[in-house]
Amino acid sequence: MTTFTSFAHLRACCRDLPAGNPATAQAIARHEADLTKPPHSLGRLEEVVEWLGYWQGRNPPRLDRVDILVFAGNHGVTAQGVSAYPAEVTEQMVANFAAGGAAINQLARIAGANLRVEPLSLARPTADFTQHPAMDEGEFLAAVATGYDAVPPQSDLVCLGEMGIGNTTAAAALTAGLFGGDARRWVGRGTGIDETGLARKQAVIERALARHADALRDPLLLAAALGGRELAAILGAGLAARHRCIPVVLDGFVSTAAVAPLAKLNADALTHAVAGHLSAESGHRMLLEELKLSPLLDLRMRLGESSGAAVAILVLRAALACHTGMATFSEARVSNKTP
Amino acid sequence: MTTFTSFAHLRACCRDLPAGNPATAQAIARHEADLTKPPHSLGRLEEVVEWLGYWQGRNPPRLDRVDILVFAGNHGVTAQGVSAYPAEVTEQMVANFAAGGAAINQLARIAGANLRVEPLSLARPTADFTQHPAMDEGEFLAAVATGYDAVPPQSDLVCLGEMGIGNTTAAAALTAGLFGGDARRWVGRGTGIDETGLARKQAVIERALARHADALRDPLLLAAALGGRELAAILGAGLAARHRCIPVVLDGFVSTAAVAPLAKLNADALTHAVAGHLSAESGHRMLLEELKLSPLLDLRMRLGESSGAAVAILVLRAALACHTGMATFSEARVSNKTP
Repeated sequence: MTTFTSFAHLRACCRDLPAGNPATAQAIARHEADLTKPPHSLGRLEEVVEWLGYWQGRNPPRLDRVDILVFAGNHGVTAQGVSAYPAEVTEQMVANFAAGGAAINQLARIAGANLRVEPLSLARPTADFTQHPAMDEGEFLAAVATGYDAVPPQSDLVCLGEMGIGNTTAAAALTAGLFGGDARRWVGRGTGIDETGLARKQAVIERALARHADALRDPLLLAAALGGRELAAILGAGLAARHRCIPVVLDGFVSTAAVAPLAKLNADALTHAVAGHLSAESGHRMLLEELKLSPLLDLRMRLGESSGAAVAILVLRAALACHTGMATFSEARVSNKTP
Repeated sequence: MTTFTSFAHLRACCRDLPAGNPATAQAIARHEADLTKPPHSLGRLEEVVEWLGYWQGRNPPRLDRVDILVFAGNHGVTAQGVSAYPAEVTEQMVANFAAGGAAINQLARIAGANLRVEPLSLARPTADFTQHPAMDEGEFLAAVATGYDAVPPQSDLVCLGEMGIGNTTAAAALTAGLFGGDARRWVGRGTGIDETGLARKQAVIERALARHADALRDPLLLAAALGGRELAAILGAGLAARHRCIPVVLDGFVSTAAVAPLAKLNADALTHAVAGHLSAESGHRMLLEELKLSPLLDLRMRLGESSGAAVAILVLRAALACHTGMATFSEARVSNKTP
């Protein structure tokens, strides 16, 4: 069991990050250039294979074991009426995950991935962050450690997702705190609030930012004050994956917001991560731009649960199948480019 | 064996098109609204399931049999030096398809699709369309009929792709003829020509358009004068799929250009088709805008072979898995939206 003893300890762990294996990536690129197609004509399919190999240090990379981790948390800020659904839906959806009835169950199956759902103290929501920090140091670090330990060391790829009524409010507050600008830029409709709800959500976030102005100086303080347990766990899982050189697929706005503090602590911290998709939740596009992440898919999804990341696994599998299965020009006796 | 006796006969067949089944699509949308997720939160995944059901007339739709059809042709215009690869590569790649070594072989396998490759008189390239019409009426109609008959009547979904050195030149000439504007807008680098080659390709297309100005009055005359046998076959296959209400996934620039004459003859002709992806070939974006098609994927692919359409099959399978596998709110005892 991992323990982070303090913000300072976790901060140090976030700064000490391994690089991948450039020699492996170069070898993969050389083989890619020999395959029977014009150079780079598979576009991002080629790039993701190099990226997988760079982090796995394996040529060819493999996707034998893919793990989808879904963290669930409850949020005191739901008392402010920021969601279209009642707070009990978080727990009900966790039961739905267990019974196999949610979107992510179907997508995990079709993507050939393991699904692990980790509920974090659902009976005890975080504090309403318009009043108090969502979590104190101990609660925050415990949630980070839960996420850290949820990453299977033998995994070839990890997808990070979440479930938590109210958590697009937490994610918008956190990203507004981390990246600044008008708070309204970061606020979207979540599961589908109306105009009145949207205005209320914006006001809630503005109040929260004013209330926790002292936390703006540090990304981890902000994550504790404005985030949630499932966001903290995703941060921990993203960090664990990096420490173990396991490539990561991020899901939508909440999942990406959850790991954004890592990028603030170390500009290189998310190079092991790809954005699985662009969510229709309005803050996601700006957040990806801030993080210089280019989404693999744009299907106007906005469900969370790692659903977008799960669809992206299919693209990675397609990419790997081309890389490992295609003939070279010489094997297939195909003439190469006219000199 | 289908026979089209004249341009006029084919034109009549292109204008007489069945609609799909709106009642099925509505029933699918009603079920979709009951599933445990916020309404429309699966975005395009929900839309494509309705679209599949609309055309198949089946609720739920199915993807038990998916067919990828790749048509191959050779082009006399390659004599003008418009491609980065020698013309013999068309035939060599057809052999590579047969041996299982091309990208599309790997992608068809991973997408659970049948792959059928149909070479069209490769030993006898079309005429150089800077001098003569690429095909006369008989040659064109025969190629259309080959494509028409290649669509398996029992298919649940058909993907249309191509292989043909020189065929982005044909596609650019055809789209410039169909949609007008500066010919240069439609010309891209194909398999990877340099600046000099690009300028030559543009000049070739301008000469071809001037040479065949009389064909501009009719989309099918244009397709015969400036297209190629594999493009004509794709047109025929797209038409056959529509007559049989089989949904179609288009691939990239060439595949989309090939069916564009259908849309010019009947504005509703491509509603049974989805654009599998946005190709990196520069004319594709404009062409999709002209046809009001929104691509499912944008992975900077530009290989042809139906490779982009094949990756899109994976998205359709993910969509269908959600639709058929998810629990409803009442089944899962999840509270629905706060009223």
